Amino acid sequence: MVQKFSNLKYMPLMVFQVILVVLYFIFVKYSDETGYDVKGFEDTHVMIFVGFGFLMTFLKRYSYSALGFNWFLAALVVQWALLCQSFFNMKDNIIYINKISILEADIMSATVLITFGAVLGVASGLQLLFIGIVETAVGCFNFWIVEHIFKAADVGGSIAIHAYGAYFGLGVSWALKRKKATANVPNVPSVDLNGPSYVSDVTAMIGSLFLWIYWPSFNSALTSSNVEYQRAVVNTYLSLASATVTSFVLSSLLSHHEGKFDMVHIQNSTLAGGVAVGSVCNMHITAGGALTIGIGAGIISVLGYHYLTPKLAKIGIPDTCGVHNLHGMPGVYSGLLTVLFASMATSKEYGSELGHIFEGMHDEKLTAGGQALNQFLALIVTLGIGIVGGAITGLLARIPIFTPLKDSETYDDEVNWELP
Amino acid sequence: MVQKFSNLKYMPLMVFQVILVVLYFIFVKYSDETGYDVKGFEDTHVMIFVGFGFLMTFLKRYSYSALGFNWFLAALVVQWALLCQSFFNMKDNIIYINKISILEADIMSATVLITFGAVLGVASGLQLLFIGIVETAVGCFNFWIVEHIFKAADVGGSIAIHAYGAYFGLGVSWALKRKKATANVPNVPSVDLNGPSYVSDVTAMIGSLFLWIYWPSFNSALTSSNVEYQRAVVNTYLSLASATVTSFVLSSLLSHHEGKFDMVHIQNSTLAGGVAVGSVCNMHITAGGALTIGIGAGIISVLGYHYLTPKLAKIGIPDTCGVHNLHGMPGVYSGLLTVLFASMATSKEYGSELGHIFEGMHDEKLTAGGQALNQFLALIVTLGIGIVGGAITGLLARIPIFTPLKDSETYDDEVNWELP
Amino acid sequence: MVQKFSNLKYMPLMVFQVILVVLYFIFVKYSDETGYDVKGFEDTHVMIFVGFGFLMTFLKRYSYSALGFNWFLAALVVQWALLCQSFFNMKDNIIYINKISILEADIMSATVLITFGAVLGVASGLQLLFIGIVETAVGCFNFWIVEHIFKAADVGGSIAIHAYGAYFGLGVSWALKRKKATANVPNVPSVDLNGPSYVSDVTAMIGSLFLWIYWPSFNSALTSSNVEYQRAVVNTYLSLASATVTSFVLSSLLSHHEGKFDMVHIQNSTLAGGVAVGSVCNMHITAGGALTIGIGAGIISVLGYHYLTPKLAKIGIPDTCGVHNLHGMPGVYSGLLTVLFASMATSKEYGSELGHIFEGMHDEKLTAGGQALNQFLALIVTLGIGIVGGAITGLLARIPIFTPLKDSETYDDEVNWELP
Repeated sequence: MVQKFSNLKYMPLMVFQVILVVLYFIFVKYSDETGYDVKGFEDTHVMIFVGFGFLMTFLKRYSYSALGFNWFLAALVVQWALLCQSFFNMKDNIIYINKISILEADIMSATVLITFGAVLGVASGLQLLFIGIVETAVGCFNFWIVEHIFKAADVGGSIAIHAYGAYFGLGVSWALKRKKATANVPNVPSVDLNGPSYVSDVTAMIGSLFLWIYWPSFNSALTSSNVEYQRAVVNTYLSLASATVTSFVLSSLLSHHEGKFDMVHIQNSTLAGGVAVGSVCNMHITAGGALTIGIGAGIISVLGYHYLTPKLAKIGIPDTCGVHNLHGMPGVYSGLLTVLFASMATSKEYGSELGHIFEGMHDEKLTAGGQALNQFLALIVTLGIGIVGGAITGLLARIPIFTPLKDSETYDDEVNWELP
Repeated sequence: MVQKFSNLKYMPLMVFQVILVVLYFIFVKYSDETGYDVKGFEDTHVMIFVGFGFLMTFLKRYSYSALGFNWFLAALVVQWALLCQSFFNMKDNIIYINKISILEADIMSATVLITFGAVLGVASGLQLLFIGIVETAVGCFNFWIVEHIFKAADVGGSIAIHAYGAYFGLGVSWALKRKKATANVPNVPSVDLNGPSYVSDVTAMIGSLFLWIYWPSFNSALTSSNVEYQRAVVNTYLSLASATVTSFVLSSLLSHHEGKFDMVHIQNSTLAGGVAVGSVCNMHITAGGALTIGIGAGIISVLGYHYLTPKLAKIGIPDTCGVHNLHGMPGVYSGLLTVLFASMATSKEYGSELGHIFEGMHDEKLTAGGQALNQFLALIVTLGIGIVGGAITGLLARIPIFTPLKDSETYDDEVNWELP
Repeated sequence: MVQKFSNLKYMPLMVFQVILVVLYFIFVKYSDETGYDVKGFEDTHVMIFVGFGFLMTFLKRYSYSALGFNWFLAALVVQWALLCQSFFNMKDNIIYINKISILEADIMSATVLITFGAVLGVASGLQLLFIGIVETAVGCFNFWIVEHIFKAADVGGSIAIHAYGAYFGLGVSWALKRKKATANVPNVPSVDLNGPSYVSDVTAMIGSLFLWIYWPSFNSALTSSNVEYQRAVVNTYLSLASATVTSFVLSSLLSHHEGKFDMVHIQNSTLAGGVAVGSVCNMHITAGGALTIGIGAGIISVLGYHYLTPKLAKIGIPDTCGVHNLHGMPGVYSGLLTVLFASMATSKEYGSELGHIFEGMHDEKLTAGGQALNQFLALIVTLGIGIVGGAITGLLARIPIFTPLKDSETYDDEVNWELP
């Protein structure tokens, strides 16, 4: 009888899937806008499903769950995000979809996967799915504020995707942890599973490398001209390259054992260059500027892993994958860079591109300073919505219906999978 | 002396390769048609070589053979398929080739890899190569019937590629099994190798995820306009997403242990959405329709793995990868969907696209009902040719020259590889 | 204190990274040339970072180093190569960059990764980085000679990238080996680590397959018309396919145990078809010719692994990955093929393409024979610069500051990584 109930635990998801079908039947039609050549569609899919999925396989006995929940979450969230995103710009109550709609929904699903990284191994499948559904709706609302209220430049989504997802994740982690500390005292924590094996660190590199390779496609996917697109690709590539070199050097520098590299830094901080340059990659930051941004990203990220993550864990905000160091701080850094570059933007420098890149300067006739202020506000509001939204969602996820894990069940595929 | 003979066993393949070279010198020229932008070429390669190859690494000690034979088979068959396919539309005895020819040959090679999945671990290398060569020639003939006799719509190949390859594989499996059951009684079956290890299930996910990611490219590769292309991509993506959610939920529902997921379902049934929507993905099925098709695919496929595959094995048709549940039944399902959507097709709904999507309605002036009948006949003929062709080919593959495996040699890399 | 010094060992790299930033600020601007559709950019990235990286994970305890150093090297070298390459064609002391510049820099970084393969497990990280920086500068100079002095056709880089990188690597290997034989006598060589495990051979196949899949993109990336592009893709694909079939057959034929395949051949010789056709893939070699070239490549490469590599190791030129058989000899073979096809080139055959493919025949009004001679000279000069450059660089890399490995430290991640 107990078994029967536990077999039914994912049925609410099936109900939600059926509701999605009904909503699609009612609201969604194919778009006829087809002249637009969509860049980055397939590359972004690789990042979402292979990149995030395999990056999180680094735990020695949580690879199935990392790959499986990543897939389950993204497949559900992408359908839901498409509706949520389009809610604000329907015409005659119809949502027109094409490759770009799906690409945007893919990008939004990254927020949920980032949050998954923060609570990897400590949240149950049902908790993750509940969190993902709420986070997507809130994230689309926040995205709309960033884009339509503040008219903020955020082409690669470092503000509205990376920082949002990371701080939402920290909020969730804080809320889930409170629960565990009080409720599961009798259980022996399975701390020994919270670490990699030799092979799991190699499979994690599959994810890490594919994320790195396609990051220029991700950041440039939503650019609107070829000049802007090429600049976004070049800047992202350069920032990733210098962040990679910096991460290796700094990892060796901070080593406790004769300058050895730490795989955690290599798998993650190398990617921080992609986040850090994300929101500004289509701006005139110069090639040297892109390299400099990447160096800063590598430094921030490795220092975060080395010093900050252990401290956060102590004060009750564990972060399994260190998403704060890969997505959180580099996202804030990128947001602050948009403030800087917006404040310096002139029509002399940008020509006819100015209004496309800084929409507030076109739509609202903002000055450079005004656009810079809006960038800052967009960042602050995103952080606020992320942290508060994550904390509330995490607290809601504590109710027993979402089957929270006992400490003895953490970081363990055994809970969710038939193992060989 | 025995060793020398066994070293020569693949020499007939070299002879066949040389014959191919001669045929290419005689018949093949570069095409000058170059204005056509070829979509999906590289993505399809990833599916064929990485996708199919890694998906089949799930057995604990057959990963080398899965990857190796997949590669060997595809590299040989793609050359052969290019000739076989073009045999029916040569001009002045010349075959003109370009990227599209190779893409089509790649797609045809998928039939052989599907069949490989049905007999994974139980067919010898020589048997596989013999089967592949015959299956390709028969498959190109069947493809010609589907396309030119019945003028059937089958853009993603769910009829002529997936259903054909799967039922051909079941025919082969039945024929090979008969042999084994009678001839190898004294051998101890190495049944314990017919299962995954923790790591092999993770590497199989590489294949599974890349197949999933690029399936929209596969289904849409041979569309002829941008509107049709985008619709094919969107529909395939939605169907995959809902099939994935459904597969997870149903896998948990059918679990014998507290709602745990079964990796076999996750690796395979998630992809059934791509097959199920394949033949109709360029039609006006609506976004809600695509999601519904995917849900159906997930249900059919997981139920197939859970109930049908063990029964088929009992009656002498083992199916190592369960291709019947991933390619067979979802392919038939897609074929039946073409009957449905063809019967409902109107020029009011489709406009000028009608004749491109349903060629019989243009070339043969068929009514919607006539096209629907042709779709049904194309499916039935494909199943017949697949099953009968597979059974006969499998019986021929039993002759000793193809070095059939003893039961003790099954599911084991040791037979074919120098292992570390 | 010793620990502190060893923690600082990569700091010179950080200094070099900062110098690169300064040079980028001074010299580099975004290009406005944006009409050009860049093919093969992302595909080449996959080859460089995933392809080369994972191919070299085949050693049982050197997977972290293979992936890590490959990434570190490429990320640094790609920045440096972009400057070195552009040094010869600056306008007003400005280097204009766009996607193509980065693509070309990516391609140049392949030389360093090929050399890495030759000394995989025996060179220290600092040695590799020193070698990479020198090799890139010398390689760009050699590239300029091949392209601008000899006006040699080398579209896929089999001469200036593959042969150069491989012979530079052999030169380095010879020079490093001399050091080791004399200096590290007391150490016990860790020879048992110089081999694969079951899992490491599977992860190496990830690299191998992605290299194979995207090789047509690599060879065709720098073509200048769609006709030429499609021919390059088709020829490369066919050559890879026949090389793959040949490698399997020959691997079985040379087996010591009943015709078993050797993973080393399968992972590497299958790819030799891509190198062998590289320099001639845009020429009128015919489809049958492409297949024939691939067969030759498979034969040369497998024979090289079987007979030559052990002999080279005996005379003091070890080659861990056998890059001589994958890149060296097939590169020379491709160079000789350019001599052949240049000597036969007529304007009747090539029409208006003649001057684009054989630039010497256009720019310098060379005859077919003159172009053929130039092709030969370009090959010879490349080999000379590669071997001598590699040997000198290797000798310089022996100075203690580059922390050469003791024999007991070879092929071991333990030296460089915090292992789980």
